[in-house]
Amino acid sequence: MLREMEISRAIIEAYTEELLESLSLDVAIVGAGPSGMVAGYYLAKNGAKVAIFEKKLSIGGGIWGGAMGFNRIVVQEEAKEILNEFGITYKPFKNGLYVADAIETATTIASQAVKAGVRFFNMIEVEDLVLKDDRVAGVVINWTPILMTGLHVDPLTVEAKFVIDSTGHGAQISQHLVKRGLIEVPGEGPMWAEKGEELTVKHTREIFPGLYVTGMAANAISGAPRMGPIFGGMFLSGRKAAFEILEKLGRG
Amino acid sequence: MLREMEISRAIIEAYTEELLESLSLDVAIVGAGPSGMVAGYYLAKNGAKVAIFEKKLSIGGGIWGGAMGFNRIVVQEEAKEILNEFGITYKPFKNGLYVADAIETATTIASQAVKAGVRFFNMIEVEDLVLKDDRVAGVVINWTPILMTGLHVDPLTVEAKFVIDSTGHGAQISQHLVKRGLIEVPGEGPMWAEKGEELTVKHTREIFPGLYVTGMAANAISGAPRMGPIFGGMFLSGRKAAFEILEKLGRG
Amino acid sequence: MLREMEISRAIIEAYTEELLESLSLDVAIVGAGPSGMVAGYYLAKNGAKVAIFEKKLSIGGGIWGGAMGFNRIVVQEEAKEILNEFGITYKPFKNGLYVADAIETATTIASQAVKAGVRFFNMIEVEDLVLKDDRVAGVVINWTPILMTGLHVDPLTVEAKFVIDSTGHGAQISQHLVKRGLIEVPGEGPMWAEKGEELTVKHTREIFPGLYVTGMAANAISGAPRMGPIFGGMFLSGRKAAFEILEKLGRG
Amino acid sequence: MLREMEISRAIIEAYTEELLESLSLDVAIVGAGPSGMVAGYYLAKNGAKVAIFEKKLSIGGGIWGGAMGFNRIVVQEEAKEILNEFGITYKPFKNGLYVADAIETATTIASQAVKAGVRFFNMIEVEDLVLKDDRVAGVVINWTPILMTGLHVDPLTVEAKFVIDSTGHGAQISQHLVKRGLIEVPGEGPMWAEKGEELTVKHTREIFPGLYVTGMAANAISGAPRMGPIFGGMFLSGRKAAFEILEKLGRG
Amino acid sequence: MLREMEISRAIIEAYTEELLESLSLDVAIVGAGPSGMVAGYYLAKNGAKVAIFEKKLSIGGGIWGGAMGFNRIVVQEEAKEILNEFGITYKPFKNGLYVADAIETATTIASQAVKAGVRFFNMIEVEDLVLKDDRVAGVVINWTPILMTGLHVDPLTVEAKFVIDSTGHGAQISQHLVKRGLIEVPGEGPMWAEKGEELTVKHTREIFPGLYVTGMAANAISGAPRMGPIFGGMFLSGRKAAFEILEKLGRG
Amino acid sequence: MLREMEISRAIIEAYTEELLESLSLDVAIVGAGPSGMVAGYYLAKNGAKVAIFEKKLSIGGGIWGGAMGFNRIVVQEEAKEILNEFGITYKPFKNGLYVADAIETATTIASQAVKAGVRFFNMIEVEDLVLKDDRVAGVVINWTPILMTGLHVDPLTVEAKFVIDSTGHGAQISQHLVKRGLIEVPGEGPMWAEKGEELTVKHTREIFPGLYVTGMAANAISGAPRMGPIFGGMFLSGRKAAFEILEKLGRG
Amino acid sequence: MLREMEISRAIIEAYTEELLESLSLDVAIVGAGPSGMVAGYYLAKNGAKVAIFEKKLSIGGGIWGGAMGFNRIVVQEEAKEILNEFGITYKPFKNGLYVADAIETATTIASQAVKAGVRFFNMIEVEDLVLKDDRVAGVVINWTPILMTGLHVDPLTVEAKFVIDSTGHGAQISQHLVKRGLIEVPGEGPMWAEKGEELTVKHTREIFPGLYVTGMAANAISGAPRMGPIFGGMFLSGRKAAFEILEKLGRG
Amino acid sequence: MLREMEISRAIIEAYTEELLESLSLDVAIVGAGPSGMVAGYYLAKNGAKVAIFEKKLSIGGGIWGGAMGFNRIVVQEEAKEILNEFGITYKPFKNGLYVADAIETATTIASQAVKAGVRFFNMIEVEDLVLKDDRVAGVVINWTPILMTGLHVDPLTVEAKFVIDSTGHGAQISQHLVKRGLIEVPGEGPMWAEKGEELTVKHTREIFPGLYVTGMAANAISGAPRMGPIFGGMFLSGRKAAFEILEKLGRG
Repeated sequence: MLREMEISRAIIEAYTEELLESLSLDVAIVGAGPSGMVAGYYLAKNGAKVAIFEKKLSIGGGIWGGAMGFNRIVVQEEAKEILNEFGITYKPFKNGLYVADAIETATTIASQAVKAGVRFFNMIEVEDLVLKDDRVAGVVINWTPILMTGLHVDPLTVEAKFVIDSTGHGAQISQHLVKRGLIEVPGEGPMWAEKGEELTVKHTREIFPGLYVTGMAANAISGAPRMGPIFGGMFLSGRKAAFEILEKLGRG
Repeated sequence: MLREMEISRAIIEAYTEELLESLSLDVAIVGAGPSGMVAGYYLAKNGAKVAIFEKKLSIGGGIWGGAMGFNRIVVQEEAKEILNEFGITYKPFKNGLYVADAIETATTIASQAVKAGVRFFNMIEVEDLVLKDDRVAGVVINWTPILMTGLHVDPLTVEAKFVIDSTGHGAQISQHLVKRGLIEVPGEGPMWAEKGEELTVKHTREIFPGLYVTGMAANAISGAPRMGPIFGGMFLSGRKAAFEILEKLGRG
Repeated sequence: MLREMEISRAIIEAYTEELLESLSLDVAIVGAGPSGMVAGYYLAKNGAKVAIFEKKLSIGGGIWGGAMGFNRIVVQEEAKEILNEFGITYKPFKNGLYVADAIETATTIASQAVKAGVRFFNMIEVEDLVLKDDRVAGVVINWTPILMTGLHVDPLTVEAKFVIDSTGHGAQISQHLVKRGLIEVPGEGPMWAEKGEELTVKHTREIFPGLYVTGMAANAISGAPRMGPIFGGMFLSGRKAAFEILEKLGRG
Repeated sequence: MLREMEISRAIIEAYTEELLESLSLDVAIVGAGPSGMVAGYYLAKNGAKVAIFEKKLSIGGGIWGGAMGFNRIVVQEEAKEILNEFGITYKPFKNGLYVADAIETATTIASQAVKAGVRFFNMIEVEDLVLKDDRVAGVVINWTPILMTGLHVDPLTVEAKFVIDSTGHGAQISQHLVKRGLIEVPGEGPMWAEKGEELTVKHTREIFPGLYVTGMAANAISGAPRMGPIFGGMFLSGRKAAFEILEKLGRG
Repeated sequence: MLREMEISRAIIEAYTEELLESLSLDVAIVGAGPSGMVAGYYLAKNGAKVAIFEKKLSIGGGIWGGAMGFNRIVVQEEAKEILNEFGITYKPFKNGLYVADAIETATTIASQAVKAGVRFFNMIEVEDLVLKDDRVAGVVINWTPILMTGLHVDPLTVEAKFVIDSTGHGAQISQHLVKRGLIEVPGEGPMWAEKGEELTVKHTREIFPGLYVTGMAANAISGAPRMGPIFGGMFLSGRKAAFEILEKLGRG
Repeated sequence: MLREMEISRAIIEAYTEELLESLSLDVAIVGAGPSGMVAGYYLAKNGAKVAIFEKKLSIGGGIWGGAMGFNRIVVQEEAKEILNEFGITYKPFKNGLYVADAIETATTIASQAVKAGVRFFNMIEVEDLVLKDDRVAGVVINWTPILMTGLHVDPLTVEAKFVIDSTGHGAQISQHLVKRGLIEVPGEGPMWAEKGEELTVKHTREIFPGLYVTGMAANAISGAPRMGPIFGGMFLSGRKAAFEILEKLGRG
Repeated sequence: MLREMEISRAIIEAYTEELLESLSLDVAIVGAGPSGMVAGYYLAKNGAKVAIFEKKLSIGGGIWGGAMGFNRIVVQEEAKEILNEFGITYKPFKNGLYVADAIETATTIASQAVKAGVRFFNMIEVEDLVLKDDRVAGVVINWTPILMTGLHVDPLTVEAKFVIDSTGHGAQISQHLVKRGLIEVPGEGPMWAEKGEELTVKHTREIFPGLYVTGMAANAISGAPRMGPIFGGMFLSGRKAAFEILEKLGRG
Repeated sequence: MLREMEISRAIIEAYTEELLESLSLDVAIVGAGPSGMVAGYYLAKNGAKVAIFEKKLSIGGGIWGGAMGFNRIVVQEEAKEILNEFGITYKPFKNGLYVADAIETATTIASQAVKAGVRFFNMIEVEDLVLKDDRVAGVVINWTPILMTGLHVDPLTVEAKFVIDSTGHGAQISQHLVKRGLIEVPGEGPMWAEKGEELTVKHTREIFPGLYVTGMAANAISGAPRMGPIFGGMFLSGRKAAFEILEKLGRG
């Protein structure tokens, strides 16, 4: 006989176990967009203890809608190998551009990331950072709907050796350091696809002890141009951050 | 050199081609939740021309949040084979219950569905049905944000031999027949997991010439009980609808 | 040294333990207003396993604001003994009326209820009932902010031998039976304090197998008059329901 | 027989063809108000490849309501010839002022602009500029309802030799350069009709390589006075910008 | 010298004169969509005193967005002559379908209507009907923004021999008779382009003494199918209503 | 026989006549609160051509609610003579304080002001100033509901020799000069009734050529303390401004 | 010295005294529009103990805006004597119509009503009726902002021998009897000024023991036509109700 | 017999008496969170005349939700004695941490505070300070729903020898001095539980003559770290402020 109470128990126990195990992490990634999920995939695959906190219910960030809702994305030659790594289908366009299905891209990356060992905590927003002795040491989390409704409820805290801000052009995690005067965020520049793709990878780095930026957050932190619905730079940025952190964790 | 205009052109051409090809379908599925995506997967895998229209940007319906945001779901013995078909990881709980990760479940089903040939049109809402000579003959579509903002803009129309209403407990597509007095929808009953799981599959059927219901929409149409975060019935319902339609299409 | 992670762990473990223990209850009370809390107090004091689910963050229902924000409430002679039971201060007015402080009343009842063994689950809304073989058998719960924001997330289920609807004049829990055509709720009548006080207690009863109503919900279910900022009937109604249920539980 | 699918196909094909052809323009005009439409008319009439992007569904900007909803507008002697050019009816008032119907003015200008070859893209908002090597080189576009609803969807990009900001007193396009610290926008001054009319035309100019301002945007950029429901300056400003750009395009 | 006060005076006097002259009309048309404007054009062209009241600032109704924002519309063979009458450009598609630009269509019809003598009152909503001795005898008008903001302000009244409800699928003017129990409005049926086009013209008629319906309002009144972004029926409906009324006015 | 059209005509003609006559004023008062209405009363009584523009439908500003909705106001000895001038009833409290009914105060002042010759234009907001050769020369007006709904509609202009900003603590009219860098507004100080009453009158003055401030706007302009529900300073401020302006108009 | 605390005390004491005195009334009038205030004036003038409860901060109802914001109202011959009674200025139009200033009308009636002895309680909404032994016996009141914000706060109760519903076309007070099935309210009919004026007075009556309706509420209760910005019927209705009630109170 | 009017009278009289007595206080505490209520308890217990103003209907501030809605809180060794003082149940966790029930904590502190003599004024917001001769001398109060709805209603004033800002991390009362340039508020720092707990107590002090800060407001004023759901520092901060003020009041 199917008993409702056992369904409830199965879910509560499984989730709580995962949550308790994630209170102390190697890497806490904020934002389940393309660069964050790719970073998570490579980190988990290489043995790091990693969780992604995503404020929405669904993962994928800006991938889903392609451009203006035309749900296709473009990837250039340099990043084709990452599509291959994940097993995402693509078609050549011209001049070294490839077109992929936005839905397949978002879901396949996430599916592979979970299988590689990444823990996703969705509907959970990082509302602040832990900062001790001038080093980022974790994230402060709360249910997104609690924050959306303005209910006055305290958060929980998760410790992490490294935090990755992959929250996109708002660079929302880095903003917690900005408002305390510790760093500056100029914001992303106007559109220039070629420069944007190049600089996204270049600006992927540890901007404050313990805090990495990837993808559009990397651009925003550095005032580099935005690039629109081309995703190669996002993927390469996530992979670069993962490998740099793995090295620092002694897993490189 | 990376030219923005070519990125634009690649996306517009790829999407338009897909959209034009989808103006005449074997099956139009409305709602990319568990039963709709499973139905789509089996239909496409067996050669039907099928598209899923999803009003949100992301697919997955009610899977993402598990229960109360504890992102795990439960599946019972009878539906384990579908988890296996898609390659979703699960752990046994007790009494024939299995626990799976909500993120992995949602993304893996979608990823496999695309690879099997399902076309997803997200951020597109079905605002009405086509009805000719007392048979459902297609769907009337519009951008979701146009409908959300109440802008006065006409829709487009897609022809289909069959339409599946997999929009969940609201049975929103069936409602278009309700408001014209053609069918009645009693709405889902109170929680009773065992009965709900059993009846979901039983009530999966062609409720009006050309229109199938699956998952919670099947329960709502029949006044059967709801069942909470157990998903076996959803999966089996989707598969049942797919096989019944395939037979009528001559592909069974 | 104070470690954030240990604070997190302490809270998660304590809450989860309580939640798991509450998945199967003697009595699930919905609404932490005056009648619900008084019912809970007497039930717990007499050994029943009881939890109160309250959709707001704070308990107290309509007590806090007195009348028009003038934070005093009135209690009549017949209910004075309940004020005494809880240790609430009051001053005589005239004609058998007593005035008490609204803040003291709300907080003292709640404080005593917890000490008597009642478990409070606040910020949790009962979104439906469990109904098996024509008997109410539990409640379906979800985080209030999830419901407020319309996020699509499944609920959990709690089993209970009895459910008390003490949600006030909306009788929100009973409405779940109304919309399935199982009972009727005429709604509270116009103001008539004397009749209202008398009928509140009289109409406190099991309106459907497994479901009790108390306080204003009892009036709403029976079409009895409302009574304004006099609380004796609320208190007596809660106590009456508690004693009737205790008897059925074999603890009377 | 009238087939819905063919209606859909006719519209999708006609629009996509136009959109693809507009991915590389001589002039991208932002804002279909009086100065933008007049500029577009003269540009197209003289052979430039020009499109107007308008964030609302309807064109016309501030013309429709006349003043306080009294739907008449005033034009002075100097601009009468433009009314004649478009074939708009007017009546003399006194002191060289003429009164015209707001509806006739808005629709006749737009009707003539389309016939002259201007492509209108309505319900499309320019959300940023393309900026390469310190020259404005195009516009970044998205569906307005996507931006209104805050959906996270990437834009498309259109290349253009010149961009005209005719978005009115907010000078919204120029603001994209302001927030990057490239130019300053003091905002329009208080009302002074005579000065305002005179300066609107004078301040119509290329404020940054590749970017022109017209109409109220020209005033806002220069801190010149506003002028209320008199439209001569708007029309003359649009014509001036057109002729200056035509010369630079070698069509003057 | 340009004096602000004279600009104000010119506008107030011109508008007030028009408003006073329109207090007694042959025909009051409600809604400046395709059928209403076409009706107005033919009425005015044949000497009737006619005004169109439009609740939005801009005219055009559902024409602007084409379908899903793809701003093209389709017209069939039967209505081509009306495109010719107004001088709207079109291109043949196939099977007797023609494609026209939505912007050109909306603005050219309105421009020609004003020139033919129609008075437009935009941003004015008809909030009720005048009904005397069981005949519609005029309309009750108010500023739209007053109604949008819920300000408590009385309306003005305009007398008319005939009123045309061309408010689209809501048939908002006819609703004022519905809520008084004088007529019934079943609402538009599901999509079926061919039937819809045919029935729109057929159902264009005087549904109550003094009240005509055109376009989608005619379909809604009769429960006929909707037809999507094809506009021939709209145009023919407007023309039919005009000629029927002209005859009754003795101008046929 | 009562004809609706004549009622319409009577109102339109009476209002338009008044509006046209008010396009050129001696004094334009913005805000029908206590200081503005008192100023208007004394100005009109002494022959000045004066109009009050009030953005709400009703006049009275902050008088109606007394304090916290307890609808009584307090007036001190020094201002008793103004209560007498208007014929407002009052009762002595103690220490030279008098209590009056808020409703009687608001309505009696307004009633007397109209009888003295003040023209009220309610539901009309002053959205900007006219500024010529460094002197305030009039006000720019629009319907409040147009501004509330954000509709894009141009304003009308009214010329005036003097403008009084009696808009309360926001000093909204003076803000139009602040945002152009012409004056500074520190904002009202914390509560100190005695100082506030004294300084309100003292700071009533011409703060920019052609622009007077009265009441709380005078305090805000000067950073003087607020004073709560005592109205003597408001009344005296209005009278002071009136007499100073009358002198400059040669009517002192 | 002016002490803030004494200002507070003066206001609290004066208001509380008035409120306590008003807990038992001869007549409770709901809605301070034209008919309610006129009724109050005649009742108080003839010695009845009467209070008006108005949910807005300001009194006046629909008078302020005239028609479409053109702030003039019309009164016909039959009601001229009431304008004279209050001392309101008016100008003859033609055919027995008179035009008055809306501001003067609203404020003068209120000012005279207070002086005659009417107590106004503004910003207080009547949220229900007291009903004992099938007779309306009082009103249930609460602060409007409490109801607007949905705060859960109990009301206070005021006893009255008679209640007048002068809340306008919504007949909100009578609705409390409608929703309990005690009376029916058909709602106002379409516009017909002559009939409306005549029937407003005729339908002014005691619709349920203890409950009178006046003005538009009288029309709504009887399904009579609305009449627009002519106010004679409103005034005469208020006076009629006052005299009928005075007679029943033994003061006629 | 129970008479509604007597219930009303009892409440109005009891509240008004309390309010009048509270117009002059020793200490006005703003915010009924943990530090404010603890401060109030110790102040009242030692004879000070003290009132707490709380803008919400319910007291308790951030206690109710524990962390992320898991309604447990943590207290460290140093503050255990305060739990004992109030009689709150707790369980040891490890490393000197104790877990308590959030509901019991919030309600027991409030219940004891009332019994100790603290007057609570809930649903009342402090909208400003009284400031005389550079010393905070009281608070300016208004009903919260009046402020929430933006109604234009004056406040009342309460005199106090000391004011405590215990409004949490926003330090809303101190902000009234910030906006006048009298003090600076850097805002709370990122999470660091140990430092935060230590500094909360240290920074509890008189920041401006007459104004104390406690709890998170003390941290915000000093830029100290936040600490999450551990409450020892809150309790100790409240007690420290109470004892310092008692000393200055001569009651130490």
